[in-house]
Amino acid sequence: MSLLVVGSVAFDHVRTPHGEAAEILGGAATYFSVAASWFTPVRIVAVVGEDFGDQHLQVFRDRGIDTAGLERTDGRTFRWRAEYTDDMNEARTLETQLNVFETFAPKIPAAYLESECVFLANIDPVLQLRVRQQLPKAQLVGLDSMNYWITGKLDELKKTLATVHVLVINEGEAQMLSGRSNLKQAAAVIRELGPEILVIKRGRYGASLFTRDSIFFAPAYPLETVRDPTGAGDTFAGGFMGHLAKTSDFSDGNLRRAVICGSVMASFAVEEFGLERLLRLSAPEITARFREFKNLTHFDV
Amino acid sequence: MSLLVVGSVAFDHVRTPHGEAAEILGGAATYFSVAASWFTPVRIVAVVGEDFGDQHLQVFRDRGIDTAGLERTDGRTFRWRAEYTDDMNEARTLETQLNVFETFAPKIPAAYLESECVFLANIDPVLQLRVRQQLPKAQLVGLDSMNYWITGKLDELKKTLATVHVLVINEGEAQMLSGRSNLKQAAAVIRELGPEILVIKRGRYGASLFTRDSIFFAPAYPLETVRDPTGAGDTFAGGFMGHLAKTSDFSDGNLRRAVICGSVMASFAVEEFGLERLLRLSAPEITARFREFKNLTHFDV
Repeated sequence: MSLLVVGSVAFDHVRTPHGEAAEILGGAATYFSVAASWFTPVRIVAVVGEDFGDQHLQVFRDRGIDTAGLERTDGRTFRWRAEYTDDMNEARTLETQLNVFETFAPKIPAAYLESECVFLANIDPVLQLRVRQQLPKAQLVGLDSMNYWITGKLDELKKTLATVHVLVINEGEAQMLSGRSNLKQAAAVIRELGPEILVIKRGRYGASLFTRDSIFFAPAYPLETVRDPTGAGDTFAGGFMGHLAKTSDFSDGNLRRAVICGSVMASFAVEEFGLERLLRLSAPEITARFREFKNLTHFDV
Repeated sequence: MSLLVVGSVAFDHVRTPHGEAAEILGGAATYFSVAASWFTPVRIVAVVGEDFGDQHLQVFRDRGIDTAGLERTDGRTFRWRAEYTDDMNEARTLETQLNVFETFAPKIPAAYLESECVFLANIDPVLQLRVRQQLPKAQLVGLDSMNYWITGKLDELKKTLATVHVLVINEGEAQMLSGRSNLKQAAAVIRELGPEILVIKRGRYGASLFTRDSIFFAPAYPLETVRDPTGAGDTFAGGFMGHLAKTSDFSDGNLRRAVICGSVMASFAVEEFGLERLLRLSAPEITARFREFKNLTHFDV
């Protein structure tokens, strides 16, 4: 199935205990599309500025990502500067320049209107809903959001949530959105808002899948060194949605495999700065790590 | 195999958002022995005061626990008062009265000296080592410790660690003991100190097993209501060691099943206050939840 992602493309400046990288390609839609491109053809809708060069566009093209929806406009590209301290769990944002992203109004190219799988990365829920309404044929629509919208535009977010199939969200945000600290209670409240399929990302503790039929837990891959956690959540979503679009199978068993695909891709992403590791991957590496995940949780009854 | 536990017996006063219970039987050796008694015969070495009545002793006897090593002495039993706030992750200690526990010098009855499995629950590492040295025939010795000893008696704790096979410890304590925030690095450092088998308890995120051969992750059972987390870690250790003592099989595959047994028992313990749920269990309930754990992490490759 075709997979469309709508979200941000940015230039990041990131410092972690393992190094620093400036002006590197980032943004939710970037991490998502590069990760998903290892599974299925991807289309991207985003906005960039005049400083976005052909060498940046080439990164997407080299991964076979359709960039007809990547709008270039007057001004500078979205910029984000952050640092991670020793425990690597949370980024401390040092500077955000929205630039061209401030007035982002996603334009869906005509050729994309038939998209069967869609991911609405973390942007204003009003924009997410507008995109959703242009894609009535989508069979699987996933969404991400964040505390900023949960606090500031809860009603709008709830309206949008009622129109999607999948929510992929952080544990803290799930607690905030549901008003429940208990994970199972939070999942029940959120699934009532619309999304039948809920994936709660728990950082170094892995991810949990809640469906009508069951609950599934995946661990995070145990890495000795996490160099840069930036984009791990969006990469997870890319692997998850990419696997589902590739297989066109939304059964419980395949949703579980999709969670593992997301976990595999996120584990690669954080091994190096920015997109470095995701761009240097190979299909056999992905398959091998998928099997390693099996071994991490397998036991005989 | 016979299983011996050495540790504390206490009267707890616990308040959680779900209620309050005073003067209830608790302590690490209590939770451990009651949990393990569902798998194998258990012997306990601990000290109690004059206020420890026959009705309390009967709790152990009803579970078939050998109380020949339960020393009754002048004074009052160890008392602990604590409360949990909404997120239920950490107890806030309101009062500790060591009482007879302050001068606890474990006395191992002659009949226990042949014990094949031993668990040294969280007490002074000097006492743990003294017990360990009296049990040269033990084939599997497990140990728990805490931040108090890591900070205050690190050298003594390291000496003790060098003599045991298994360490069962909280994630935060593993980080403190190893000086590493990364879980995989922490595990490598700790296993170098002696214990070949390391279990890191991660509270509501489950537990991780590190051996020479592999890493294994078990989730926590998703409960809608956690009424009282007291004793969850000791209950986990009881299920873990109880299964190993019952099966006399220390292979990687069986260690994984032992982690699940520990997780199963801990999940029951926190459903109600104190020992209530652990005393009202049945073997079929334990088996059923063990199978549920399989379903929580299973996926087809």
